Amino acid sequence: MEIQVMTNILDKNDRIAAEVNAIVSAHGIFCLNLLGSPGAGKTSLLERTIAELADEVNLAVIEGDLFTAKDAERIARQGAPVIQINTGGGCHLDAAMVKGVLDKLDLYSLDMIVIENVGNLVCPAEFNIGEDVKAVVLSVTEGEDKPLKYPLVFKEAGAVVLNKVDLLPYLNFDMAAVKADVCSIHPEAALMEVSCQTGTGLAGWYDWLKVQIANKKAGCWRNG
Amino acid sequence: MEIQVMTNILDKNDRIAAEVNAIVSAHGIFCLNLLGSPGAGKTSLLERTIAELADEVNLAVIEGDLFTAKDAERIARQGAPVIQINTGGGCHLDAAMVKGVLDKLDLYSLDMIVIENVGNLVCPAEFNIGEDVKAVVLSVTEGEDKPLKYPLVFKEAGAVVLNKVDLLPYLNFDMAAVKADVCSIHPEAALMEVSCQTGTGLAGWYDWLKVQIANKKAGCWRNG
Repeated sequence: MEIQVMTNILDKNDRIAAEVNAIVSAHGIFCLNLLGSPGAGKTSLLERTIAELADEVNLAVIEGDLFTAKDAERIARQGAPVIQINTGGGCHLDAAMVKGVLDKLDLYSLDMIVIENVGNLVCPAEFNIGEDVKAVVLSVTEGEDKPLKYPLVFKEAGAVVLNKVDLLPYLNFDMAAVKADVCSIHPEAALMEVSCQTGTGLAGWYDWLKVQIANKKAGCWRNG
Repeated sequence: MEIQVMTNILDKNDRIAAEVNAIVSAHGIFCLNLLGSPGAGKTSLLERTIAELADEVNLAVIEGDLFTAKDAERIARQGAPVIQINTGGGCHLDAAMVKGVLDKLDLYSLDMIVIENVGNLVCPAEFNIGEDVKAVVLSVTEGEDKPLKYPLVFKEAGAVVLNKVDLLPYLNFDMAAVKADVCSIHPEAALMEVSCQTGTGLAGWYDWLKVQIANKKAGCWRNG
């Protein structure tokens, strides 16, 4: 009975996600679903990305949070269009929430939409929200055991961004182990070591995004 | 319809939680539900706590994880009885899961059971699992905006443990702001600054636990 309800929810969600992806694809917009624990650095990564790619990429952000518009305010200060979705306590975004705000964005002008999901390494990984690809941010302060403990999000993510590497000298963090575990779960995932504080490694992230955007414009991305 | 299903789940869960609490209370055992993001330091806090209180407190741990027994293995190495619950991808523990493993513990010998919940700042806060009180671990690396972004867990928690303060010199973290926000959400919460790496501040945590255990033995704790 519970399984039946869940199946219905996911089936309905997947249909709406396909709608969302069809809409953004009609505009050639690359759509990224950005995941990670609370405080992993998702918003910081977006702040740097907006500033760095301002001249090359027309980028908008959809911010998902339980409450508050704190992250949306940070994004707005960087000068990018941003829409806030508050889930009112809900643990993940779903496709209907995204569909409900799409018409607030000027889709004709955009190259990329980044949807920053609710800070949660579990539930958001289960829901397609219309993205072309998911990326996950893992802070090295969270410890190297996280890929094996939360495998779904790493299996789903096309890119794994290991953030806060500026703190590595003060942590016991086994970088080789985390890389081996990510590779065992998802061998094709792009893996980057970055610091949104110092800027280390972010060039690789920007390059990865630009490849995705170019692929989308060339019609290479297919959802699902 | 969805709301109805959720109401039924929570009602059933609360009845089983009351059963769990009645069982542990019959033995005078203080039961703590330990919450926090992935990598906040819940297991590290327990490792230190087991070692420090070994001579004074008979303590067992129930470990909740999606997959793996990594945390249970760390606890077992400290010499405490430990039971692993794997949710198989589920984002929180519920009371039935806890009830299902209680008879694997020697309840006659225990002063305290700590249930380490799934690493998730959202969903576990919604479920009573039979505990006397919840505590939340927040790593300062997660940023000072977390109480306002995830208010329920801070509203529910009797103690807020701010962990990894040894990293404060390398972070932009506004300690005054986080304290003010926790106080605005839950003025009665005990608030501690600790480092499970260096041991800073942990004496206050041990004292808080000992008071809870003494109160429980004196019959002061009531669930719900």
